[in-house]
This record gives sequence, C-alpha cells and structure tokens, in this order.
Amino acid sequence: MAFRLTPHERGFYPLFTRAAENIVAAAEELTKLVAAEPSGRPVLAARVKDLEHTGDDLTHEIMVKLNSVFVTPFDREDIYRLASSLDDVLDAIEEAADRIVLYRLDALPAGISVQADVLLRAARATASAMPGLEKLDSLREYWVHVNSLEDEGDEAYRELLRDLLAPTNDASPLDVLTVLKIKEIVETLEEAADAFETVANTVESIAVKEA
Amino acid sequence: MAFRLTPHERGFYPLFTRAAENIVAAAEELTKLVAAEPSGRPVLAARVKDLEHTGDDLTHEIMVKLNSVFVTPFDREDIYRLASSLDDVLDAIEEAADRIVLYRLDALPAGISVQADVLLRAARATASAMPGLEKLDSLREYWVHVNSLEDEGDEAYRELLRDLLAPTNDASPLDVLTVLKIKEIVETLEEAADAFETVANTVESIAVKEA
Amino acid sequence: MAFRLTPHERGFYPLFTRAAENIVAAAEELTKLVAAEPSGRPVLAARVKDLEHTGDDLTHEIMVKLNSVFVTPFDREDIYRLASSLDDVLDAIEEAADRIVLYRLDALPAGISVQADVLLRAARATASAMPGLEKLDSLREYWVHVNSLEDEGDEAYRELLRDLLAPTNDASPLDVLTVLKIKEIVETLEEAADAFETVANTVESIAVKEA
Repeated sequence: MAFRLTPHERGFYPLFTRAAENIVAAAEELTKLVAAEPSGRPVLAARVKDLEHTGDDLTHEIMVKLNSVFVTPFDREDIYRLASSLDDVLDAIEEAADRIVLYRLDALPAGISVQADVLLRAARATASAMPGLEKLDSLREYWVHVNSLEDEGDEAYRELLRDLLAPTNDASPLDVLTVLKIKEIVETLEEAADAFETVANTVESIAVKEA
Repeated sequence: MAFRLTPHERGFYPLFTRAAENIVAAAEELTKLVAAEPSGRPVLAARVKDLEHTGDDLTHEIMVKLNSVFVTPFDREDIYRLASSLDDVLDAIEEAADRIVLYRLDALPAGISVQADVLLRAARATASAMPGLEKLDSLREYWVHVNSLEDEGDEAYRELLRDLLAPTNDASPLDVLTVLKIKEIVETLEEAADAFETVANTVESIAVKEA
Repeated sequence: MAFRLTPHERGFYPLFTRAAENIVAAAEELTKLVAAEPSGRPVLAARVKDLEHTGDDLTHEIMVKLNSVFVTPFDREDIYRLASSLDDVLDAIEEAADRIVLYRLDALPAGISVQADVLLRAARATASAMPGLEKLDSLREYWVHVNSLEDEGDEAYRELLRDLLAPTNDASPLDVLTVLKIKEIVETLEEAADAFETVANTVESIAVKEA
C-alpha cells in the first residue's frame, strides 16, 4: 500500500539530516580523540559532549513534532525508531569518549581506531542518505553500505575482545582493571555501530513502504 | 491532532498509578537494603522480590486490557512502552537487590546509596505524576524533574565507575572479583534510572498528543 | 475488538514457523558444542553461524513482506516485535557459540549445559506453537511453558554468576580473565532466554487480539 506524506509531514526529514550531520561532527571528534595523546583528550571529549546536547535537542524537536502532527500510525513508529536509534548512536559515542578520559587510559589498542573510523564512515553514509528519504532514491545502496560497515566493525570488535581476554603468548598482558576499562569502551563503540544498523534498517523500512 | 480517550480506555491510568506506587515500595526496601548490615539484607531482598511479582501481575493486567479494548493504535504503542518501562525499572531494582545478597557483598560504596536515593525520588515523582495522565496537568514539571534526577544518578554512576576502575592512589584497592560484583550492581541501578527516564519521555509524549 | 487477517496476511505465519525451526537447529548445534571437546567446537560454531545467516534472510523476508502488505497498524508492531525477538534469540545463540571458540575456553561449567538445554526446549516449544498462531489454539499452554523455562534458565544463570563471582572456599578459583570470558557467555545465553520470553509475550498478545 503506497502513500505519500504531506508537505507538512516531510518536515521531519530536514531534522533527520541535521541529526545525522551532528553525528558526523561527533564521530570526527571521536576519531581525533582516539588518536590523541592523553593530555589532548579532555577538550575533544568536551566537544563530543556539546554535540550530544545538540543531538538531544534535535531528538526532542523530532518527538514533539511527531506528537503534534498527524501521520499514519505505521509511519509514526518508524519515525520514533529512527529518531531513537540516531540518539542511541550519539549517546554511545559520547559515553565512549567520556570513559576514555574518565578512566585516565594511556595507550589505546589500534582496533579502537578502526572502530572509530567505521563509525565516522557510517555517520557520513547516513548523513548522505537522509535527504534521500524525501526523494526515495539511493537508499538501497546506503543500506548495503552500512551493513557492510557493520560487518567490518564487528570483525574489529571480535579481534579486540580476543586480544583483551585471550591474548597470545607473545603479547604483553594488560592488568585486569585495564582490560575492564578497554572492554567497556569497545563494547560501547560496538553499540554505536549496531545502532547505525538499526538506523539503516528503519530507513529501508520507510523506503519500502513509500515506494 | 487532539482527541480524548473514552472512559473505558481511561481505565489504564489507575493501573499505571498502582504500578508506580508498587515501585515506590520496592525502592523504599532497596534504600533500606543498601544501608543495612549484610545480615539484614536477605529479608529486604525477599520483600523486593515479592513486590516484583506484584508488578509482573500489574504489567500483565495492563497488557491484557490493552489487547482487548479498542484504542487508537498510536496510543497503543505509548501504553505498551509505558508499561514495559515501568516493568524494566522494577526488574532492575529487583536484580540489584538480589545480586547484593547473592554475591555476599560486605560494605557497599557510598555512591550506591546515592543511586538508590535517586531511584526512590524518581519513583515518588512518577507515582505523583500518574494521576495527572488523566487530568493532563503538572506533567511538564514531572518530566523536567525526572530528567534532572537522571543527571544526578548519572553523575553518581560515573563517579562509582571511576572509583572502581581508576581508583586514586590513596584509596585501598578492591580485589578484582569485588570490582566485578559492584560494577554489575551499579550498572543495574543505572539501568533503573534510565528506565525512569523512558517512563517520563513516554508520559510527555502521551501528554503532548492529548493536549 | 476481534478481527481476522486476510489469507494474504496469514502468509507471515509459515515464515515464523520456519524462523523458529531454524532456531531449533541452531540450539541443537549449541547443545552439542557446549558438550564437545574444544577441538570439536569450531565446526559446530560454523554451523551455528550458517544458521544465523539463514535466520537473517528469514527476518529480512518477514520485514519486506510486512512493509509491502496492508495490515492494521496494531498488528504491524506485533509482527515487527515477533520477528525482532526471534532474530535476537538467534543472534545471542550465535554470539555465545562464537565466543566459546574465540576465547579458546577449555572446560565449561556444567550450568552452561543447563542454559543450552533450556534454550533448546524453548526453541522446540516455540516451533510447535507457531502454526497455532493461525489456528489460535494451544497458545496459552505454550506461553506458560516458556515462562516456566525462563525461570529455570534464570536459576541456572544466577547460580553460574554466584559460582563465578562469589565461589565457595572449596571451589578451585578461576583466573580472572576466565571469569570474564565465561561471564560474557552466560550473560549472552541469558539474553537468548529473555528473548524467548519476549517471543512468547508477543504471541500471547497476538492471540488475545485475535480471539
């Protein structure tokens, strides 16, 4: 059953584009943070925190709009899910940046840079795709792209877990508190990657219905 | 688009008030438990478990009612989400109480009392707000209040994590299994605080639609 | 308010039966894996991985069908939730199987076999119940059964956590990295059990509406 949103309802899509662009900015700061010396990290984490506040405002704006306009219910849940999963991405990025500083971590494993890079590429793909929600094109390609990035992130995540918990004999073992700190950070970054996949699945779902 | 629930449908709201009051009772027992000597904890954890069973019955009653009456679908998901997130709060409170006893923990860090106190205040705010769902007043104030409690809980949570994983030199270090046990409990209490925020966001969402 | 799905819409139910039967196959391999010698595990984990891919295809087929046919919205969310929670079960089973191999674990605690057995029985109960979605019978019994299995799984889970984190004096203590590895696996298996409970709750919800 095909239908079209009215122009009023299309007002959601610019907000989603802004939310996704805001995530790109946060992922850029995260990428710098995981490459930075420990002394340079707090200022970058503070920027990520600011961007998270901006994201919260955008999520709230979308939710208020969602609750005050008429949209057929079956889209309503898609819009809710899309806004929530974009919010989840940014929360996880902010939490990871915060914990790296809070735990006074020294060197980070190289795999964390791979995770951050995957998130940055997923953020850029998402921001590029959002205007397509209105025009309903190029979305299939975006969905395939994010799913392939998710596989790449998952591989980095598995290798990080293996190196943390089952290190080979030639690796110098980390003390257990350091293992716990890093494990929490890589899990949080994996949550961000999973939330990008939920974003992509929801976009696909909207696109199929409107096609 | 404004609309009103019929009297029949308003029957949900007393159930939500009872569910929230039941959570207040559980949060009161939790507050006592985290202040008690280890020997006094099992009886308090058993009371929390009983209250969780009462909560399960209330959730089930709401879900059966939801499935057997006509409500416009876009409210249906709100009601589902509200019942589920109240259930999540109580599950997390019960799990935290259970684990403190199961792990035979001795002294608990002071921050856990802060977390429990935040949960009790959020529970009371929620129970006070629930009758407002019918009259649609005072809900904005409640939403702001719970969000500010969530910030307070989050700060206690971050400090607990930092003290557990990155203790300063003058703190006597805990053994790693104790770190793992306490970390699990503070994470579970943080989940309860997050679920209260979901409750508040859903209440706000219902209020906006009905306004 | 009772209503009936049209024959076209009933096309979902055979897909759910296939998804549940696929989970039975995965749970059978998991049961073998947790009983196997370490050297025999990788081939079994590879089979679970293959079954997870099959499950992903089935989930995608259900979602595409859901997005392209007309169903009243209030069922739509139930169908979405049912497909998602079946997907969650299989993801968790695959993740647990993968981690056992990835972490090169040696002997596993006996409680993990109990968890795997509970999952297999829940999978079989679910696969037997799915055709009942169409005929709307025997579903109450299934719901009670899965909830009782969930209690059984929860008890095994609690005992595993207690033995890992608060071992009695006569148990030979595990090294902390082994505790972390096993804790992650038992938590993942508990997630699978929880997801089966969500499946059962959603099935009950659909049954009540259609009754």
